[in-house]
Order: sequence, then C-alpha cells, then structure tokens
Amino acid sequence: MLIVKKFGGSSVANKERIFNVARRCVEEYQKGNQVVVVLSAMGDTTDDLLELAATISDKPSKRELDMLMSTGEQVSVSLCAMAIQELGVPAVSLNAFQVRMRTSRVYGNARLKKIDRNRIQSELENNKIVLVTGFQGVNRYDDVTTLGRGGSDTTAVALAAALHADACEIYTDVDGVYTCDPRIVPEARKLDEITYDDMLDLATLGAQVLHNRSVGMAKKYGVELVVRSSLSDAPGTIVREELKVERKLISGVAVDKSPARISLIGLHDIPGIAFKVFNLLGSQGISVDIILQSVGRDGTKDISFTVDRKNLQDALKVLEANLSKLTAERIEHEENIAKVSVVGAGMMTDPGVAAKMFEALFNADINIKMIATSEIRITVIIDEINADAAARAVHNAFLPED
Amino acid sequence: MLIVKKFGGSSVANKERIFNVARRCVEEYQKGNQVVVVLSAMGDTTDDLLELAATISDKPSKRELDMLMSTGEQVSVSLCAMAIQELGVPAVSLNAFQVRMRTSRVYGNARLKKIDRNRIQSELENNKIVLVTGFQGVNRYDDVTTLGRGGSDTTAVALAAALHADACEIYTDVDGVYTCDPRIVPEARKLDEITYDDMLDLATLGAQVLHNRSVGMAKKYGVELVVRSSLSDAPGTIVREELKVERKLISGVAVDKSPARISLIGLHDIPGIAFKVFNLLGSQGISVDIILQSVGRDGTKDISFTVDRKNLQDALKVLEANLSKLTAERIEHEENIAKVSVVGAGMMTDPGVAAKMFEALFNADINIKMIATSEIRITVIIDEINADAAARAVHNAFLPED
Repeated sequence: MLIVKKFGGSSVANKERIFNVARRCVEEYQKGNQVVVVLSAMGDTTDDLLELAATISDKPSKRELDMLMSTGEQVSVSLCAMAIQELGVPAVSLNAFQVRMRTSRVYGNARLKKIDRNRIQSELENNKIVLVTGFQGVNRYDDVTTLGRGGSDTTAVALAAALHADACEIYTDVDGVYTCDPRIVPEARKLDEITYDDMLDLATLGAQVLHNRSVGMAKKYGVELVVRSSLSDAPGTIVREELKVERKLISGVAVDKSPARISLIGLHDIPGIAFKVFNLLGSQGISVDIILQSVGRDGTKDISFTVDRKNLQDALKVLEANLSKLTAERIEHEENIAKVSVVGAGMMTDPGVAAKMFEALFNADINIKMIATSEIRITVIIDEINADAAARAVHNAFLPED
Repeated sequence: MLIVKKFGGSSVANKERIFNVARRCVEEYQKGNQVVVVLSAMGDTTDDLLELAATISDKPSKRELDMLMSTGEQVSVSLCAMAIQELGVPAVSLNAFQVRMRTSRVYGNARLKKIDRNRIQSELENNKIVLVTGFQGVNRYDDVTTLGRGGSDTTAVALAAALHADACEIYTDVDGVYTCDPRIVPEARKLDEITYDDMLDLATLGAQVLHNRSVGMAKKYGVELVVRSSLSDAPGTIVREELKVERKLISGVAVDKSPARISLIGLHDIPGIAFKVFNLLGSQGISVDIILQSVGRDGTKDISFTVDRKNLQDALKVLEANLSKLTAERIEHEENIAKVSVVGAGMMTDPGVAAKMFEALFNADINIKMIATSEIRITVIIDEINADAAARAVHNAFLPED
C-alpha cells in the first residue's frame, strides 16, 4: 500500500514531536507500506517569519513573502528525514522544486496544477520514506508560491491523487472532525464519517480541521481522507463520497471569526456589474465568500460580500480605485463580524431547519445581520462578539447531548 | 557597470543591518549600475540550524543537513529584497534552483560547476536588483548542496565571473585584509592590495576574511576582488594578480586554530600508499591540508597531515576501517594544535625568512611541532595554547610598527 500522511505544524513543533511523527511513519513503513509524508512548518515558524517580514515592510511583496515562508517547510522535512534516519530507516526530503509542484501564478494563494511523480516514485522504489514540503509550489516563472492557509492539506491530497495512493491521512492535534469546535461548544461530538460536501461546507465555514481546497480536490479525485490525531491511535473521521451509516440531519456547526463584510452601494442595475466586481477582486487573488445582492432604489442595487479580513484592505483599495467604473455610489465595510453555519446534506428536504436555527438565535438574543443558504447549509452573519454564544445555541438546538 | 556585492551573515544579522545592506545596494543602483547581491544566512542562523539538527541526530545525513542549512540564505535574500523594495527600488531574490547553480555531487562541501546566466540577466534587464542565495547549489540529482565554510564568497566570485561583472565586492565586518588578525595582534595593519597567491595562502591558513576557494576561483577567472567593510566607506583591500606598488617581503601572518593532526605510523615504504590514504579521505569529502611524510625505521614510513577538526572523527573512522589495507601499524592524532604562517610572494628569494621566523618563536619560548613550507609561505604547527603569542612574535619580527 502507498500511504500519504500529512502532519501539521503543531505535530512537528519540537524535537519530541518530530520523533513522534518519525516513529509513526516508520511503523507504517515496517508494515511493508510505501510512505509519503507531507509536513507543514514547525509550530509558530510561519507566524515568526511573517513577523520578521513585518519588521522590514508593512506591505512586503507577495513574491518575496512566499520565498521567505517556504523555508519553514524545508526545515521541517529535513529535520524529520534526519529523525527517520536516526530510527534506522532510509528517508529523503524533497521541496517544491524537486517534485516540480507546479502551481498557478498568484503568490500567497496559488493553486496546485501538476506534480511530477518521477522523483517521488524513484525514491519510493529505493525503499525510502519520502518527505515533501507542504504548502508550497513553483509557478511557471520558476518562482516559489504558497498555497494559502492550510495549503499543506492540499499538497497531501494532490500527492495522494497523483501517486494513486491507497490512503491519505491528515494528522492534526484533534482526533477527528467534530460537530462544532469543542473549545466553543463543549458538548461537540466527534463524527465517525462525513461526506466531502458536508466537510467542504464545514471547512469553508471555518471548522479549520481541513483546508477547503483540499476537500474539494479530494472529492474531485475521489481521494478518501482520514482526519486523525497525531498523538493517539484513535480511528479519526473518514471523509468520503457516501456515508456508510444513515446520515443525520445536521453534520455540524461551523464558526468563522475571520470574515469582513464589504458592501457596494448604489450600483447601476445593468448586466455585467457583478461580473466586473468579482473579476476585479479575482485578478488580485482575493477570494470572496458569501455574496448577497439586493435591489436598491431608483434602478440601483447593492452587493454585499465577505472576504477574509486579511484581504480587506487590498479589496477596498482596488474597489475604491474602480468606483466609477463599477458605477458604485460608495463602499461600506465592517470588520468585526463572524459566520455561524449549520451544515448537513440531510437538511435539504427539511424546511424546518432554517426556522429552528433562527429561533435558537432569537432565544439567545443574537441579532442576525445577513443570511445565506445553500442546499446543505444555512449561514448567518452576526457580530463577532456573539459568535461563541450563537454556536452553542445552534449546536444545542440541533445536536443535543444524547 | 555590473557590480556583484557579497555580504556576510553579520552584515544581515538584524533589521537595521539588512536595511544598511539594502541602502548600499540602492546607492549603487542609483548611480546607474546593475547590482547583483549575494547574501549569507543572517547572523547565527547557520549555527542555530546546526544545533537544531544536533538535537535530532548526532550524525545527521549530509544531504539532509544541506537541505536544512540552505533555508538560511533564502530567508536573508527574501528579507533584503523586501527592504530594497521598501526603499523604492525593484528587487527580486533567487535561490540556487532558480539560478541553476550547479555543483559537484558531494554534500556539505560541494564545488560550483556551472551557473545559468539567463534568469539573472533577464531580471537585471528588467531593472531589478538581483539577490542570490550564497553558499548553496544544486547537484546533478537536483539535490541541494552547500559549498562549505565561507561558500558565499565563492558564490559571489562565480557570479562575477559568469556575468562578466566589472567589480566583485566582498563586504565583511572588518575594513580589509590585515597583516594579521587584529584581535590577536593589535599592531596588525590593513593592506591596500594583495596578490591572489598571497591572499590564497592567507585565506587557506585561516585569515578568515575570504574563503580560499573563492580566491582560487577569482585568480582562475581574473576577477578582481575588493574586500571592504559593510559599515564604512573605507576603500578596503584589492585582491588582484599583480600589485601596483612594490611588494613587501611578507604580506601577513595567518593563524588557524581549527586543524587537527593525524599521523599514520609504520606504513610500508612502497609506492601508492600516499595515494590510497588521500584517495580514501577524498572519497569521504574530507580535505587534507598540510602533509608531511617522513622515513621511519625498517622500511616503513610515517605520514602526518592536518584536517579540519570537525572532520577528525570521520577521518579517523575511515582510516581505522582500512588500517591493514593502508599497511599502517597504528594511527595517532592530536586535536589542540594551531597553524601559524607567514605569507608573502616576496619571501621566495630570501633565505633568511625561515630563520627569522624560527628565531622569533624560539625567543617567545614556543615549541614547533611540524614545519611546512611553500615558495610563498612558511607554516608551523604548534600547540593551540601558544597560537596568539606565536602570531604576535612572528608579526612583530616581520612587520614591526612603522
């Protein structure tokens, strides 16, 4: 069997944990399996490097930032290779150049496009455990890119797909996917399995266990994922196309405290305006999440949407610069908001879900600022200060303790 | 003009110094010159990474060590590129993969073989200051190598040669090449110029201002070097083929506290033994410095040589393993020794130099353990504890204060 294992930054934060990862990989290897390991940067390395850059520039070039950040994973993989060798098993670390991890052009948030299997396969054939830097790639200019938050998950799934791996295990500091963040809702329960779609919504909506892009890629290529703890042998949560047992109405409640809202007010109500807005943002590599459009007065309309807070200033800047082109009267924005969502493919057929959610929030005295729904989720935007209380109220309404 | 500037680790040790380097580069650029900058890792980064590796393994794989170490320069160049951009000048950082800095196979001490000029030239044509990671390369397996101690100097000279640069400036924390290390001999004086050959001997013998391999490469390709301070505008020392002013008898006194001695005792006095010994060490990537062979008794001979202390255990191990093949009775070694050398092409014609040196050491009551001479230098091996006193005695005998 060929197994891809991905370990996050906290799993390799120090010597002891690196050896823990090394031992897990060696155990797998000694069962006769081929092992490919994807690692993130150690502990707080990424944040430390960002801080270092911040001492140099308020707004460092994204290309140079990626060049800087990518060193973190290279440190992890080389140290972990040494640890595996110390345990008596041959290992080799590879960076994005060496596995020709080709990505799109954009820095800071590139998309994986192609992986050259040759180098990894020849190392596996030489009976080595292969460690690959997560989170990073190389674009067509031969420049280093990074894949954005949680990008190492995507690296692992892409490798699993490219190598036709038999399993892709995502190790984390929790023992699986929960119905809500247990730090916010103590009653949250671990799920034994979840569908790609539900996981995708949970990930997108801020469950932070798996990167949304990685789940999308896993779905696309049919890579079955296992999310499990790097510190225990608990079985974790399997993410797959169809559940083996009957699905519940609701898979979980997701809380996301990272969004900011932008509203474009008084746009002309003519075709193509929305396209212009989001094309403009897309060209800057800014992802937009929830979009709401409402009819305004006198032949105008308003468009509101959320972006990650870290992109707020960039987004405002490019929108301000194109205000007249977009036919907008003005731009409003709001930073301290949160998203709370209930997710579950089971809700599709049940009209009572939305009502139940709004009732729970009403009972908790929480004001709803925006509502967005899809077939498998209902999301509300509320003040950030209410996020935890809202999550508890909604979780306890849908997923009461057994 | 195309100028290559190399800055060492202490010149980029913190934010202020990185901006100092950035400013110097921007000044050069604003004079209308093209600027290529080679950087070492920040401050103690290299040592910190080595320590990190040492927590994982007593004897980490050299391949993985190079993978680890090479991250240090990538951090420097990306941060310095940000600093130059912050000063309003376009800049781009490039690593060894991006400039196809091809080296020999050996890890930890690879030799540069070939540089692809294309990427650097196209960035220069786009009016950018180009920053290149020093110290590192990529071998034919596409694996990261490092060039050994002081390797960033070699990177700079190689780039200057490949790009046909008009000048190659090596910035350091002293303002040039001195007749001896001023920390050891306070009377040491700065040289305005020095020949490649003299510099080569000073570098090899431990003056530590310039890496010996870089001087050899500069000589080979006729790259005129300037060694100068990153913290002042003092003119520095020019290293070139021929001096403009009449040469002194002695260029300087070099002190090296890094060697260890190994002696192979009782070797058969037959042809090919020396070849076997040094071929064996060479195959392990261990450089040998001074070699002395003496005739022993009963048709045997002894070979003594010095290696860098950090290679002592490796060298002993491979020699012990081949003891009988080498026909050696036994191996002796000694760790706490030092080399003190007088260097100067002017001494070739003067038979009194050796006598004067030995007299100075005798007067200082310092015992000589080994002697080695070439046309332009005389080296003695002494106990490390006597190294500073020996350097002062010899310096003051040959280079008394004016």
